[in-house]
Amino acid sequence: MLVVMRNDATEEQVQAVIREIEKMGLRGVPMPGAIRTAVCVLGNKGPVDAALFLALEGVKEAIPVTRPYKLVSRETHQESTVITVGDVKIGGGEPVIMAGPCAVESEEQALTIARFVKKCGASIFRGGAFKPRTSPYSFQGIGEKGLKILEKVRQETGLYVVTEATDTENLAAVEKHTDIIQIGARNMQNYSLLRLAGRAKKPILLKRGMAATIEEWLMAAEYIMSEGNPRVILCERGIRTFADTTRNTLDLSAIPSIKEASHLPIIIDPSHAAGRRDYVIPLSRGAIAVGADGLLVEVHNDPTHALSDGMQSLYPQQFEQLMKEIERLKQFL
Amino acid sequence: MLVVMRNDATEEQVQAVIREIEKMGLRGVPMPGAIRTAVCVLGNKGPVDAALFLALEGVKEAIPVTRPYKLVSRETHQESTVITVGDVKIGGGEPVIMAGPCAVESEEQALTIARFVKKCGASIFRGGAFKPRTSPYSFQGIGEKGLKILEKVRQETGLYVVTEATDTENLAAVEKHTDIIQIGARNMQNYSLLRLAGRAKKPILLKRGMAATIEEWLMAAEYIMSEGNPRVILCERGIRTFADTTRNTLDLSAIPSIKEASHLPIIIDPSHAAGRRDYVIPLSRGAIAVGADGLLVEVHNDPTHALSDGMQSLYPQQFEQLMKEIERLKQFL
Amino acid sequence: MLVVMRNDATEEQVQAVIREIEKMGLRGVPMPGAIRTAVCVLGNKGPVDAALFLALEGVKEAIPVTRPYKLVSRETHQESTVITVGDVKIGGGEPVIMAGPCAVESEEQALTIARFVKKCGASIFRGGAFKPRTSPYSFQGIGEKGLKILEKVRQETGLYVVTEATDTENLAAVEKHTDIIQIGARNMQNYSLLRLAGRAKKPILLKRGMAATIEEWLMAAEYIMSEGNPRVILCERGIRTFADTTRNTLDLSAIPSIKEASHLPIIIDPSHAAGRRDYVIPLSRGAIAVGADGLLVEVHNDPTHALSDGMQSLYPQQFEQLMKEIERLKQFL
Amino acid sequence: MLVVMRNDATEEQVQAVIREIEKMGLRGVPMPGAIRTAVCVLGNKGPVDAALFLALEGVKEAIPVTRPYKLVSRETHQESTVITVGDVKIGGGEPVIMAGPCAVESEEQALTIARFVKKCGASIFRGGAFKPRTSPYSFQGIGEKGLKILEKVRQETGLYVVTEATDTENLAAVEKHTDIIQIGARNMQNYSLLRLAGRAKKPILLKRGMAATIEEWLMAAEYIMSEGNPRVILCERGIRTFADTTRNTLDLSAIPSIKEASHLPIIIDPSHAAGRRDYVIPLSRGAIAVGADGLLVEVHNDPTHALSDGMQSLYPQQFEQLMKEIERLKQFL
Repeated sequence: MLVVMRNDATEEQVQAVIREIEKMGLRGVPMPGAIRTAVCVLGNKGPVDAALFLALEGVKEAIPVTRPYKLVSRETHQESTVITVGDVKIGGGEPVIMAGPCAVESEEQALTIARFVKKCGASIFRGGAFKPRTSPYSFQGIGEKGLKILEKVRQETGLYVVTEATDTENLAAVEKHTDIIQIGARNMQNYSLLRLAGRAKKPILLKRGMAATIEEWLMAAEYIMSEGNPRVILCERGIRTFADTTRNTLDLSAIPSIKEASHLPIIIDPSHAAGRRDYVIPLSRGAIAVGADGLLVEVHNDPTHALSDGMQSLYPQQFEQLMKEIERLKQFL
Repeated sequence: MLVVMRNDATEEQVQAVIREIEKMGLRGVPMPGAIRTAVCVLGNKGPVDAALFLALEGVKEAIPVTRPYKLVSRETHQESTVITVGDVKIGGGEPVIMAGPCAVESEEQALTIARFVKKCGASIFRGGAFKPRTSPYSFQGIGEKGLKILEKVRQETGLYVVTEATDTENLAAVEKHTDIIQIGARNMQNYSLLRLAGRAKKPILLKRGMAATIEEWLMAAEYIMSEGNPRVILCERGIRTFADTTRNTLDLSAIPSIKEASHLPIIIDPSHAAGRRDYVIPLSRGAIAVGADGLLVEVHNDPTHALSDGMQSLYPQQFEQLMKEIERLKQFL
Repeated sequence: MLVVMRNDATEEQVQAVIREIEKMGLRGVPMPGAIRTAVCVLGNKGPVDAALFLALEGVKEAIPVTRPYKLVSRETHQESTVITVGDVKIGGGEPVIMAGPCAVESEEQALTIARFVKKCGASIFRGGAFKPRTSPYSFQGIGEKGLKILEKVRQETGLYVVTEATDTENLAAVEKHTDIIQIGARNMQNYSLLRLAGRAKKPILLKRGMAATIEEWLMAAEYIMSEGNPRVILCERGIRTFADTTRNTLDLSAIPSIKEASHLPIIIDPSHAAGRRDYVIPLSRGAIAVGADGLLVEVHNDPTHALSDGMQSLYPQQFEQLMKEIERLKQFL
Repeated sequence: MLVVMRNDATEEQVQAVIREIEKMGLRGVPMPGAIRTAVCVLGNKGPVDAALFLALEGVKEAIPVTRPYKLVSRETHQESTVITVGDVKIGGGEPVIMAGPCAVESEEQALTIARFVKKCGASIFRGGAFKPRTSPYSFQGIGEKGLKILEKVRQETGLYVVTEATDTENLAAVEKHTDIIQIGARNMQNYSLLRLAGRAKKPILLKRGMAATIEEWLMAAEYIMSEGNPRVILCERGIRTFADTTRNTLDLSAIPSIKEASHLPIIIDPSHAAGRRDYVIPLSRGAIAVGADGLLVEVHNDPTHALSDGMQSLYPQQFEQLMKEIERLKQFL
């Protein structure tokens, strides 16, 4: 249930609606919009009686919400959400490029790549400090040391930084040292981690699970929002199918699906989807043309010696080429 | 095995190579290129001895072919193939738009839509005369009468026409009355139909099967080419996955996969992939930006009363919008 | 709509119902059951008025059918169908074993294997004469010669024989020389072939398409039944998924799904599903325990020299072992 | 690399091998077997020189391990592992039945069901205290209170109990109060949780992720074993596919795949795979016949009023029927 207030409703009237909801043993979350406020009713198992609210002052209408998710839904929040990180706006019409190596390997490596992607026009630096790895024997990232390198990257280059929090233990450190907290595909349904991310003060970049439906993905975002963090960026990174010329199948139809169902921004990670650097440029062009709010791209100064996932990292000259193509494509939008 | 001739090799030298191949109980198919000819060895089960050919006059090299497909492979034919239908070039750099209703319903309906898509800039008219339907009780198309209507569409509008041949019985009629013969996704491994298509004199538009890998799809094209018809246009139309906000999952990474493995052109059908008209425009933009050689799009003058698949047919004003966007996007490419 | 007649309804009353249906421009197909007859209404696009039929003599009730398939549906035919081939009953409680090589290679090979599987307890011999192959350059079967060998197998061993008809051209010959006509997975939606199979006088073994839902598969069976052939045996042979230790993923839950939705018998092909001979025995046990009406198993006297799919063919001693295990398992059922 | 010791090798000789491995900067983990010990070399990135070890006393051979997993591999441990919980042996030839409600709702509910499943022959009680739920607004389990109820179930009935640890916070409590710690499908790649499970002193029941390959699943088990906990029970619970008559597709071929690749026991959860109670009995029969080491089955005294997943819980009489069928089927094995 969504209780939509009149344009001229007072804060006191909004609070009265919330008190009424709480009397029913439920929660009322105000969702302020550009021209009016709506109050979202959470915690009900079945339908809630609209008449109760319509009788209150300042209430315009009470709309039953038909989807299982509420806070992330475009039904409850019609305008697209723009997430601001410093002077970067994600979801604001201009695609945002997040680029960097799969893993932070050293200060020198990170700074070299960061300066390069900055020069090419990227606004956010990506790099893993904690790496979730299929094998316990694989390189697991350099941990906290990597976070400090990311902080240095921000100081030296002015790029904002995003990195993955792989568990409830390292999320606080990731929040402290970086600008955007990534939740990886394997953790999309790690509800303890989602809840903690929901109490963080930084935006969350939530990757789609390899076998997650659009609804399950939005429910994961709902976990974050229901804890109080409204700043969620969705990231499609390929789904698991029978197709075998790419590591995963990039599902670009997720963009219109998300735009229809939710007000949250969505970006695309072509590097993990394809698993092959040669497909990253064409798929990036496709993502932007379909309407993605940004890209998350892997680039490395020396892919053949990368400690992690070199196969899918762009060579510097390829990244430069990508940025030129995106720049031209932006004029089309 | 691919026997590559020298630039200055004579026709007689090419024939000598073919005779040598035939002596081994195999087939030799000449593949003329812009600067040199190669001869493809077909029918061998294991490796063929290169030395035999290197000794012949005019032979530059003999390359073992590592893929199971040969004639469709870029290994055997490096330049991209351009398929010409009248003055329309498919694969020639400019995306080709094929548009029309799911099914030809009447002369008036077909002509109304054809005139409209022509005005908007489409160059090929699509419309089903024979419809492959999941249910024996569904509308199966108007058959031969539809083919005659398609012929009239060409005469009246100058648009070339493409329609599906659903079996070995109606392929000859489709070939006679139309310009491009479509083989549908359900028939991608109907080998008798593929063989017959390989003996036709018109280009074949070969849709990808719902669960076909890139290799299986190219093998289906190989069936057509191995019978002598070199004019095959591949068409991606969505693969079957667990994702449930679209009818199928459009696999745009098929474009770089095909471009890498084959010299054949590839177009995209966003209508059947999405199954929802509202996703057709963004997915079409994505397809063109990734590098598709064209689009196959459903449009109907009155989708709500369409006899077939109205849900995915664009309204005329949507098609007009699509064509404007493609026109602008082409300037970027 | 299903018009259910009273137990004591006369043939004349049934005919009167059919005439009434025909007056509405629809088709009425009588479905005689053990204790009463029902008349299935085909061809309607929307609901049909039940009142019209309830007024007729001998009519017990008129039930709206909610599934898109009708003749194959358990709603229209509650008792499980038993398909009789000579003295073999498929669907009659006792699992039927169909075994033999992937391809008929020679009279000697076929007879050797046939005598062996007969001795072990199989009742039907399988072997491909026409082979649908992904590659145009692969062994395509020995064709009509193979059909004659199959006929000889029946004469010499008393086994009934099943083989695949791969197109509308060879279906008549398959019907003439063999006892059961197989439609392969790749042809599950080859509607011309299904229609022709529907006019054949022999039972049809219909394999599930690699990406077919249960409903699509039953609709394919409906094509056959709607042409007048009520003898359809369904065969699950693995579906295409991301799993990679088997060629396809055997979906044994298809057995309860089919038993719930349809009255037709269902058998399992573990050989093509697994693609590896070592999995065939455990998966066969599983299939029988879940409730399959039979098995279609590949066995070869010399798998390492088989012309086709040797990797998945059982060695003779493995087949003997399988038959012993099935024999013991039958006592459990 | 696996360093296999001679039958008569002394403990001192084993320690000498481990010291040699540590000198190389790697880890050596002794794997005692029935007749000899092997030492597994962990941490190497490339091949390790066998000659180094063959020169040591007591060493029989040094075998390169070709799979990415080691401790879970049958290559390193040929005998099947039997996991003992009290007097229950999992993997010991006799299938073990674990049964109970989806969620522990109250002491009365749990005890009622536990007494019933005990009477029918189950040896382990299952019931969720912490429930991982797709929606933040769904019933999340009764938490620690549920663990205490499970402890009471054990005291009153003598059944051992298994329940899910959903995060690193509640794993210690689950370990304290119960006998087997379940890691759910959504957490199969939650590496922090896996590592913590690897340091627990109780067996781990590790469910397969919805889109996990056999190799990824075994790598998750390897995480647990590499931390020192050798007692891992694998549990197949359906994979995500396009099939739509069940919630997931039960992959019974996972049983031979696991048995071939690993020495760990594997059980089957037909309830979550099918998502429908009516399919649980046939699929359970199939699982046992294929060779599963046990079943994890949901049963509820009042499914229609269950707080969680009532749709897939067996009615008591159905569970009784299941146990009778399994009892008979065991005689076949």
